[in-house]
Amino acid sequence: MSVEDALIFDEDGLIPAIVQDVHTGEVLMLAYMNREALRLTIETGETWFWSRGRRQLWHKGATSGHIQRVIEIWYDCDGDALLVRVTPAGPACHTGERTCFFRRLPSRDKPGREALPSTIPSHR
Amino acid sequence: MSVEDALIFDEDGLIPAIVQDVHTGEVLMLAYMNREALRLTIETGETWFWSRGRRQLWHKGATSGHIQRVIEIWYDCDGDALLVRVTPAGPACHTGERTCFFRRLPSRDKPGREALPSTIPSHR
Repeated sequence: MSVEDALIFDEDGLIPAIVQDVHTGEVLMLAYMNREALRLTIETGETWFWSRGRRQLWHKGATSGHIQRVIEIWYDCDGDALLVRVTPAGPACHTGERTCFFRRLPSRDKPGREALPSTIPSHR
Repeated sequence: MSVEDALIFDEDGLIPAIVQDVHTGEVLMLAYMNREALRLTIETGETWFWSRGRRQLWHKGATSGHIQRVIEIWYDCDGDALLVRVTPAGPACHTGERTCFFRRLPSRDKPGREALPSTIPSHR
């Protein structure tokens, strides 16, 4: 039995994978792996995911060149989430942003302050 | 329309929330929020989640005292994941570990090295 067998994949055969820049600590994206994507990630040392929208394996950076070199993979206490620490070759986000988390929710203390105001949904 | 309305909750009404220590950059846990948990998180400034196992709202730290003070909340390009940056009052994990991601998958380069060998599932 391998450690991978201890991981819990959901009813769709997926496990969420947090991708973090190992150098800056920045959280880059959240994506999903199936067993095959995880196997390919471990074997190739670059991130692979399962695209839920396109329903296919997705080698991150295959078209953009912005691959993510895997440094280490951690799994959580429940075995149902992964933390993939990487060295990214470029922006993680398809928008060109370094991280997919580039918009902030308004809070009581800091109402409406956002990284990119133009991308915020309309407020009425 | 509020920004929260732009978020995409899945068919179970949930959105995954990555919790990160704002000071160390350490990823602490992955949990899930429904709209009510997100509302409570924003209102109280402390993390609330939806426990999928217990099927109830869960105020992180309510029993342990290890609450997580919310500094800022980011959402991703698809609007289907949150990044909650916090100041934790104690360990995030119910095991007493600082982060729930305390076990590492073996890799080709570093086979089998783990943070806590005793917690690794049996290998046969």
